[in-house]
Amino acid sequence: MKCCEAKRISEISTSTIRRMFEIVETARKKGLDVINLSIGEPDFDTHPLIVEKASQAMKDGYTHYTSNFGLEELRTEIAKRYEARGSSIGPENVMVTAGACEALINASLAFIERGSKVLIPSPSFLAYYTYAKLCEASVINLHTHDNGFVVDPDALNERMSKEVSVVFLNYPNNPTGAVMDDKELKAVAEIAADYDAVVVSDEVYDSIYYDKKPGTLAGVENVIVINAFSKSLAMTGWRIGFAVGSEELLEKMLRIHQINGVCAPAFAQKAVADVMAEGSDIEITQEMVREFRRRRDYVYSRLKDMGFDVVKPEGAFYFFPAYDGNAAEFVERLILEKGVALTPGMPFGENNERFFRISYATSMEKLEEAMDRMEGFVSG
Amino acid sequence: MKCCEAKRISEISTSTIRRMFEIVETARKKGLDVINLSIGEPDFDTHPLIVEKASQAMKDGYTHYTSNFGLEELRTEIAKRYEARGSSIGPENVMVTAGACEALINASLAFIERGSKVLIPSPSFLAYYTYAKLCEASVINLHTHDNGFVVDPDALNERMSKEVSVVFLNYPNNPTGAVMDDKELKAVAEIAADYDAVVVSDEVYDSIYYDKKPGTLAGVENVIVINAFSKSLAMTGWRIGFAVGSEELLEKMLRIHQINGVCAPAFAQKAVADVMAEGSDIEITQEMVREFRRRRDYVYSRLKDMGFDVVKPEGAFYFFPAYDGNAAEFVERLILEKGVALTPGMPFGENNERFFRISYATSMEKLEEAMDRMEGFVSG
Repeated sequence: MKCCEAKRISEISTSTIRRMFEIVETARKKGLDVINLSIGEPDFDTHPLIVEKASQAMKDGYTHYTSNFGLEELRTEIAKRYEARGSSIGPENVMVTAGACEALINASLAFIERGSKVLIPSPSFLAYYTYAKLCEASVINLHTHDNGFVVDPDALNERMSKEVSVVFLNYPNNPTGAVMDDKELKAVAEIAADYDAVVVSDEVYDSIYYDKKPGTLAGVENVIVINAFSKSLAMTGWRIGFAVGSEELLEKMLRIHQINGVCAPAFAQKAVADVMAEGSDIEITQEMVREFRRRRDYVYSRLKDMGFDVVKPEGAFYFFPAYDGNAAEFVERLILEKGVALTPGMPFGENNERFFRISYATSMEKLEEAMDRMEGFVSG
Repeated sequence: MKCCEAKRISEISTSTIRRMFEIVETARKKGLDVINLSIGEPDFDTHPLIVEKASQAMKDGYTHYTSNFGLEELRTEIAKRYEARGSSIGPENVMVTAGACEALINASLAFIERGSKVLIPSPSFLAYYTYAKLCEASVINLHTHDNGFVVDPDALNERMSKEVSVVFLNYPNNPTGAVMDDKELKAVAEIAADYDAVVVSDEVYDSIYYDKKPGTLAGVENVIVINAFSKSLAMTGWRIGFAVGSEELLEKMLRIHQINGVCAPAFAQKAVADVMAEGSDIEITQEMVREFRRRRDYVYSRLKDMGFDVVKPEGAFYFFPAYDGNAAEFVERLILEKGVALTPGMPFGENNERFFRISYATSMEKLEEAMDRMEGFVSG
């Protein structure tokens, strides 16, 4: 019997995950105590206050489907936060999803026309490239390497055309930690609007920042903002994200959402709405960010001491240093010889072969040990 | 600015949900105390034992991403259950998803080729028609009305061709409650295999049955079985489903899953694995099924008394009676005049205009009142 697969998935790979997994396993079998700096989630467990509220909500019967759009009280709290940041949106502009990725795939299927072009600043979160493949669109990589990893409006303008259906943005950026403020983001959205493109602005790291405050495109026409509580409240394992946009654009995403994620976990929605109403989520995030800042400053100084060319991140919990040579080989050797797992730059888009990503969502103790091992390797 | 949407979503509608919602709202505004028999989920809250185990799992730090495939212990428990039913599968054949719909859309995007044909027995769960549209395939409706709502292999054989990429099956069936046993299902899978089609067998109601025992296609080549704990353990609001299939087919679904649902809620996976290991999930389901049986018998006798032509359901919690006239109009008038909300047959596929669906996932008290109102309407 032939093995069946639709053409749209023929170029989608699952090998990056597997390859890393295999190398780490090989290192472990060699007896190495592997320190994993390739993790894309906070190392903190979800705060006990949220756990307690979710347990209560479960007991109170929040165990059923919610509306496809999500609990009204959560949508209201989310809208209020954006209003406080200057966006004029209401609960009708919020759709709660089963994680940010569900919102991203819904937006992709709704807005990326087959045969169109998708513009992605490189480097960016690797899933955007997969969404483009799934939708049988081609990718325009907009290199940001010479612009501090943020989008230069002039460079964007040069690459835009009427063929572009969707522009992905991801600031604070994974893997670089670069941040764009309101003014910078709006300049990008305006250019996209000139070409009738939808901007999908993935702002999941927007609560994790240091000195430069991240902007938001919430409330801007033809923009879908994607966000989640996964990173800001250390809730990756809860599957609760959301999209913000005009009712017209959200209705198009609903066409997918109603037959995909359907809704986010009901008690999780209730628990987050409760902590947001009290405002206690802000302190939970800030406590985490204080620790991330301490680690960032530490790792930055170690990387500079080792002579790496690296931009100091303004948000998220990643570094994206350049390596003077083949970074993929460096990453592989570092795992196998020193037991430190990093992520090679290549999956994050075009022109990233000489970079690697370090996640500092790991304890200070492990970071210290990892930096010592890296230094031993680099100077050895 | 133009409003952008990809062609693949242009024929997908969100109007069924909205239309029903609007009619119910109109009835409520008229002062009617609406009894809703259009609900597609158990009316029971999740059992306290599962809530307790999930709360404990959250406290124990099950708040992070799990592997894309799901927790090993849950996959093992699921595989054991299928083994007990005679399917030879292991944990490697199980992928946990963020609800059954996420598994269904992943399978659809992976296996439904654009321009191919998708065979759907009519009536069936309405989402399959949407998946076909999303994948730009055309639908072959296989009418089961004259065959007790189950698939007749000869009729299937006549409609099959090499153009069919996917055959959807949904037994126990929503909206009819019809059940197919192992032998009947396997006959269908064999025919599909002759044409190199993938069977997506949605078995989410397989624990809710009365006299005839539902079969499963788990372990059959070129079949993806979709299941969930939503119906069997009253966990719709938890978003935890799974797919069972060969490693080769699951790898293709993983290409979507890794950028869609990513994983199911971690603590939910742990809680379900725990109750399955103890075997206490079986009693939880059976307790619910005893109540569903009582309601089924009651509603069946009332419908027969009213003179409806209706097949006695062997599974799930729906009736799909025929109405002698325009069923959509009947449904609308019944809400507006008597405050009883049913679902019209049309969304469940071709040739269902004269049917309507009754969900008996509602208390006996409400069912009694609803049947009285219906009788008053029908005889009035």
